[in-house]
Amino acid sequence: MTRVETAPSPRTTVRRHPERGVYDRAAIDAILDEALCCHVGFVNDGRPFVIPTIHTRAGDTLYLHGSPASRMLRTLGGGIDVCVTVTILDGLVLARSVYNHSMNYRSVVVLGSARPVEERAEKLAALEAIVEHVAAGRSADARPPSDKELAGTTVLAISLDEASAKVRSGPPKDFDEDVSLPIWAGVVPLELAAGPPESARDLPAGLTVPGYAREYRRPDARR
Amino acid sequence: MTRVETAPSPRTTVRRHPERGVYDRAAIDAILDEALCCHVGFVNDGRPFVIPTIHTRAGDTLYLHGSPASRMLRTLGGGIDVCVTVTILDGLVLARSVYNHSMNYRSVVVLGSARPVEERAEKLAALEAIVEHVAAGRSADARPPSDKELAGTTVLAISLDEASAKVRSGPPKDFDEDVSLPIWAGVVPLELAAGPPESARDLPAGLTVPGYAREYRRPDARR
Repeated sequence: MTRVETAPSPRTTVRRHPERGVYDRAAIDAILDEALCCHVGFVNDGRPFVIPTIHTRAGDTLYLHGSPASRMLRTLGGGIDVCVTVTILDGLVLARSVYNHSMNYRSVVVLGSARPVEERAEKLAALEAIVEHVAAGRSADARPPSDKELAGTTVLAISLDEASAKVRSGPPKDFDEDVSLPIWAGVVPLELAAGPPESARDLPAGLTVPGYAREYRRPDARR
Repeated sequence: MTRVETAPSPRTTVRRHPERGVYDRAAIDAILDEALCCHVGFVNDGRPFVIPTIHTRAGDTLYLHGSPASRMLRTLGGGIDVCVTVTILDGLVLARSVYNHSMNYRSVVVLGSARPVEERAEKLAALEAIVEHVAAGRSADARPPSDKELAGTTVLAISLDEASAKVRSGPPKDFDEDVSLPIWAGVVPLELAAGPPESARDLPAGLTVPGYAREYRRPDARR
């Protein structure tokens, strides 16, 4: 899969395996929406840090959230550079040669800086979107944030202006001279799968497991 | 789950939710070994970058590999600071309140710098370990690297001296006043699951799918 529909910036141009580069916003959005978590990179005292967290996308904006006491959120809230990367693993690519082993995956890299979200309506909408990102339908059931909880949550916004995706799919690509070797080759598909929900022990009687928990799957999951 | 068995460094001390901090090397190793991929953070021209890649652990060393043309590997090979983070998602934690929603996860952060692996035996062992990390048993089947392929692969080593893990497990933790609300709460377990292997179309006749592909699972996967 290779599409170049909008011009990438010099920093987001995929250099290794350029045929895997994807700059189409719809494709980038679909990967951001399916990926459950992201890895946030930032520089503190000159050193790199990478922290996993939950994100959501709303239009052209990526939102992160967390505690006001979080070192990451306090650092990012100062407007420094940030790199947010999401990766979906789609399969193991087992080639005949060790050298041609690979992975099928879809990843997105977003470069930018974070803007603290102060306005109440945007903050509430972002938190609702984060819950919906995790489990579509859940925000209609869960108790909304109180004013105190809202004040106790930091929300950051990052523009998707500078983003690119990298995608590998399909079978192994072995060298011609290796294809006749008596070695099995192929792809083992992977997906993030949900098991049966585990209800909290202290639930009031008569509550049933909602559909979004009973039949959980990522939006647009490929399989 | 909270264990503090070795003293964390100031930089790897878990500050947010300190009860989730884990500094026991066996626990850290198990997470590194189960996680299929990692996210590598580094600073280039003062800006953070986060790139997904495959890692492996051998004793006290984390190995990464890739093309000598890779910007990431060339940058890291210069001995600059690196942060390698792995994250395993174990479940959605759906609480009564939006505020107490969470994830069950196990993550490890490794801080250090990368050493290019030049010695042939260590390089071959690292590449074999990377294949074994992806699919235990595969390296006995696949064609080993030729001298040319070995020269065309960069391997980097990072010490595990400075590493910490962060783990959340168990049910939602709601506020007492929320427990009686008529809202379902619980955990949706997650795991990276494998589907039926897709054999390459150009396989010689008579090859069967090996067990590590037919019944693929991560080592020490919890479920």
